[in-house]
Amino acid sequence: MQRLIEYIKMIKPKVDSYISKVLEGEPAKLYEAARHLPLKGGKRLRPALLILVARALGGEEEEAIPAAASVELLHNFTLVHDDIMDRDEMRRGVPTVHVLYGEPLAILAGDLLYAKAYEALLSTQKAPELVKKMTEYLTWAGVTVAEGQAMDMMFEERWDVSEDEYLEMIAKKTGALFGACGAIGALVAEKPEYAEKMREFGVILGKAFQIKDDILSLVGDEKVTGKPKYNDLREGKRTLLVIRALRSLPPEEAEELKRILSKEEKSLEELEKAASLIMKSKALDYALKVAEELENRAREILSEIEVVDKEAMDLINELLDFAVKREF
Amino acid sequence: MQRLIEYIKMIKPKVDSYISKVLEGEPAKLYEAARHLPLKGGKRLRPALLILVARALGGEEEEAIPAAASVELLHNFTLVHDDIMDRDEMRRGVPTVHVLYGEPLAILAGDLLYAKAYEALLSTQKAPELVKKMTEYLTWAGVTVAEGQAMDMMFEERWDVSEDEYLEMIAKKTGALFGACGAIGALVAEKPEYAEKMREFGVILGKAFQIKDDILSLVGDEKVTGKPKYNDLREGKRTLLVIRALRSLPPEEAEELKRILSKEEKSLEELEKAASLIMKSKALDYALKVAEELENRAREILSEIEVVDKEAMDLINELLDFAVKREF
Repeated sequence: MQRLIEYIKMIKPKVDSYISKVLEGEPAKLYEAARHLPLKGGKRLRPALLILVARALGGEEEEAIPAAASVELLHNFTLVHDDIMDRDEMRRGVPTVHVLYGEPLAILAGDLLYAKAYEALLSTQKAPELVKKMTEYLTWAGVTVAEGQAMDMMFEERWDVSEDEYLEMIAKKTGALFGACGAIGALVAEKPEYAEKMREFGVILGKAFQIKDDILSLVGDEKVTGKPKYNDLREGKRTLLVIRALRSLPPEEAEELKRILSKEEKSLEELEKAASLIMKSKALDYALKVAEELENRAREILSEIEVVDKEAMDLINELLDFAVKREF
Repeated sequence: MQRLIEYIKMIKPKVDSYISKVLEGEPAKLYEAARHLPLKGGKRLRPALLILVARALGGEEEEAIPAAASVELLHNFTLVHDDIMDRDEMRRGVPTVHVLYGEPLAILAGDLLYAKAYEALLSTQKAPELVKKMTEYLTWAGVTVAEGQAMDMMFEERWDVSEDEYLEMIAKKTGALFGACGAIGALVAEKPEYAEKMREFGVILGKAFQIKDDILSLVGDEKVTGKPKYNDLREGKRTLLVIRALRSLPPEEAEELKRILSKEEKSLEELEKAASLIMKSKALDYALKVAEELENRAREILSEIEVVDKEAMDLINELLDFAVKREF
């Protein structure tokens, strides 16, 4: 994955400088709040995917930059609002926007990031019918991510969430934006005939990515991930790990896990107990297996593409590796 | 204004049924929360303006409906988030979305309304270059409204807000979306050459509308307006009325007004005292005069338009009347 990491290092300043440019304005404090998260790190996987799809299908890196900035802005908009909804205080190793600027301005900063995602996308120098199609995909992602976040939130009140429901939820919450990256990348390359296929690819990649994210919340090193460990457990999220553990643990232990997840406030000891129950259930191996199956399906889709730039396609394959094997 | 009110009564079901259509989806609770405000009344002035501009310039009412639904959705998105930020509990005579559905789902419902505003606009059956331009105006409005709301919020911490600053703030907070209605209406009529002029008209109309809104918050009948009386005073807003009163009252009374506006909690007696100080200062007459000047400038712009549908243009003139003379 070294080449991918180096490639992202190379494109990051280009994407970030475009983001900086669209996030200039008045009043200063609003724009400061809006810039806080997007310019505070982040992996830039979504911009990378969009740019690499564009390149693989024959487009130029440069012409994909505004759209790449757009999907990163949309992603950051959802994070800013998500952190308010979940009352999360840290992200990317720094305090969240609402902690620093108060909730009202954080809501507005999120709204501004969303509007700016469209502004960036609309500045793409392509034929109007292509830009219009890009805007349709961005809109589809915006609608679908909101639906997925609402599902995620409503699952917290239910114990009978099925694996299929979970997979539908992450396809929306995380998959949709990766899907839009794939589709918009194809449109930047002026290959609208590939938009739907690359959207499908992106959704599957996004699902694998989210399952790995859930795993890292359980076993990751918070110094490496930048997110507080056990965050999902603390919020009582119904991840694939929890769903699987509840199904495979002996009834008494499943009840113990439910009891901890239901508590308003959870001690570190309780979180560790919950984590050890999940580990014992082998849900971790199961979740990794599901992620790998998704990875394989995604790789199949890639093999059906007529590739123009082979190097870019290699990097997309590395990105797929990274989604499942990363430690951050 | 009777003809205008009848015209709006006629188009409202068309716009609302389009809004209902785009607000169908899962999860049900999210869509229920999103539908709450837009289908709970509202004057539909923005859709009316957009449709009438389209008609006046030679477009058809029917083809303007998706765009009209779009601007109303954007408006409702800003209201849902605004009510959270201001902690307002009532609007249009019913509890606000966050009161009914909780804050997290209300934030998401607002986000969904914004995404759906794009979805509706993008369904307009016009050439891609026209639809792309419409999307640019909607985006400009989204960015500008957020800037205006942030200004409004930040003004609450300052006593030296000038009239010019106030006028800039309302041009953004309220004018921008009316401006987008004017511009998008021109584009629906396939008259892009009029888009900028109709945007300018809309911004001025929106400013007059907002000044009248501020006035109604002071002297309106809450049974007619649907909003709690003295809401602006309660939130310590720097309206034109307050700015003018602070400048023209004798120092002691100006201090008294500041003292009341600064209080975290204000009794009804204090609110009435503040209102009586503003009335005494003649700020009300002054604000009405400013609104009328804006009305006159807006009417001048209208006189420069080559009108195709005279009846529609008469109704736009009535809309301008209504903005300044309405009681709700």
